[in-house]
Amino acid sequence: MEILMQGEHLESLIAEIFPQVGGDFSVEEVTEDGIRLRLLVAEKHLRPGGTVSGPSIFALADCAMYLAVMSRIGPEALSVTTNCSIDFMRKPEAGRDLFCEVRLLKLGRSLAVGDCLIFSEGTESPVARASLTYSIPPRR
Amino acid sequence: MEILMQGEHLESLIAEIFPQVGGDFSVEEVTEDGIRLRLLVAEKHLRPGGTVSGPSIFALADCAMYLAVMSRIGPEALSVTTNCSIDFMRKPEAGRDLFCEVRLLKLGRSLAVGDCLIFSEGTESPVARASLTYSIPPRR
Amino acid sequence: MEILMQGEHLESLIAEIFPQVGGDFSVEEVTEDGIRLRLLVAEKHLRPGGTVSGPSIFALADCAMYLAVMSRIGPEALSVTTNCSIDFMRKPEAGRDLFCEVRLLKLGRSLAVGDCLIFSEGTESPVARASLTYSIPPRR
Amino acid sequence: MEILMQGEHLESLIAEIFPQVGGDFSVEEVTEDGIRLRLLVAEKHLRPGGTVSGPSIFALADCAMYLAVMSRIGPEALSVTTNCSIDFMRKPEAGRDLFCEVRLLKLGRSLAVGDCLIFSEGTESPVARASLTYSIPPRR
Repeated sequence: MEILMQGEHLESLIAEIFPQVGGDFSVEEVTEDGIRLRLLVAEKHLRPGGTVSGPSIFALADCAMYLAVMSRIGPEALSVTTNCSIDFMRKPEAGRDLFCEVRLLKLGRSLAVGDCLIFSEGTESPVARASLTYSIPPRR
Repeated sequence: MEILMQGEHLESLIAEIFPQVGGDFSVEEVTEDGIRLRLLVAEKHLRPGGTVSGPSIFALADCAMYLAVMSRIGPEALSVTTNCSIDFMRKPEAGRDLFCEVRLLKLGRSLAVGDCLIFSEGTESPVARASLTYSIPPRR
Repeated sequence: MEILMQGEHLESLIAEIFPQVGGDFSVEEVTEDGIRLRLLVAEKHLRPGGTVSGPSIFALADCAMYLAVMSRIGPEALSVTTNCSIDFMRKPEAGRDLFCEVRLLKLGRSLAVGDCLIFSEGTESPVARASLTYSIPPRR
Repeated sequence: MEILMQGEHLESLIAEIFPQVGGDFSVEEVTEDGIRLRLLVAEKHLRPGGTVSGPSIFALADCAMYLAVMSRIGPEALSVTTNCSIDFMRKPEAGRDLFCEVRLLKLGRSLAVGDCLIFSEGTESPVARASLTYSIPPRR
């Protein structure tokens, strides 16, 4: 899978397409089969007790998968998430950023499928896993 | 399934447990087998074009399932989402609130399972469906 | 959603397309928004103890969704399951057939989405729920 | 994760617990974080055209996850699948066995979570992916 967009272009893309949340994410690396994305954890992502909320973890997985697809097909495509299955396995560590590692498993003409592992920074056991399907509209 | 908490107590519970998002939701009705919850759509929930974002729809389903479980087991329980599978089927209508209808399918001692349909206000075809599993910790 | 195929045509279709398992299923009713399918439970579907196996329940949901889609778009389409999320909630009753009630939630040009509840005959609490996505290939 | 059961004991366990399908599977390896299981593809697993059916792929993932859990907690535990989310991504190659690689992501006291990739023998792109949750009953 050829890489068409690298980190800084991907970050510009998020800022444009998701203006409310663009600043929450940082592209750590475009990897051989996907991407690694950081969630810069802030007050708005937390539940009482300091743990990151489920919807914030979902948003991280969703954005990471979107960017992984964009990194391979380029910014012109209007793809949308059609399905996500997510398992919350452990409580995230308080006061730490989260990382999401996406692995693209299929990049077809109309559907892309990938899975994600999400970690608290500096820990080895994933806090969550997710798999997502994206629908890629036909080129004109 | 006996109802232990009604709408206003549930709203107080959200405000306490999810302080950052508590004001986003309104309990429309505690139904025979679940709950109907409204997302008061605001600027922060939108994508360019005016449609509600996927993470906002996930947050609605997650909160609705939580409240449906709480309405039956009471506020003392510390339950957590362990799994969610969600299908995004149609683009939400711009400028309209969303409703989530939860149906509890199982309310066991340690696991609760429910499914959700999500609608734009005033429309008949669901924009999304979700199923969620909650883990209920053992009583002391 | 107009109905294009009724029960006996659907059963002929299963017998042709799934010759190894066609005789396991009986179309009970093509409903307003889907279908109700019976699994004629036999020795091969059971686990020790007499309960129906998970893979047999999956096969019932998969076949029921397939027939629900076929009942609306007709037999010529080569659709395939792309995703299934299934929750096993209760042990099926020994010695009873299972029913699957499918509800089509979306029937688009390229994707169909539906959900299923599965019951042991004569009982009110579902043994499982599932949601499935089908990919419908473009017409020539 | 310490390994408590190796291949031949796991195969004896399948033969005992799943007598109708035990002979369909062969344990290739108990790996560092899971297991690799082979489906010995036979006529009964096929659809017209020679491709392996969806329910057969589900059965492979379900059995592989079960054995991965058993390999770590031993044969005495009565665990059951509570959830599976599966994506069918490519058509399996006709006339080839399938392999399922399970990776255990969480092995808690009451819940185990793992994910699977499924391949046609000799190919590099997975035909399917699945994630499963197992409920492990409390020890007496």
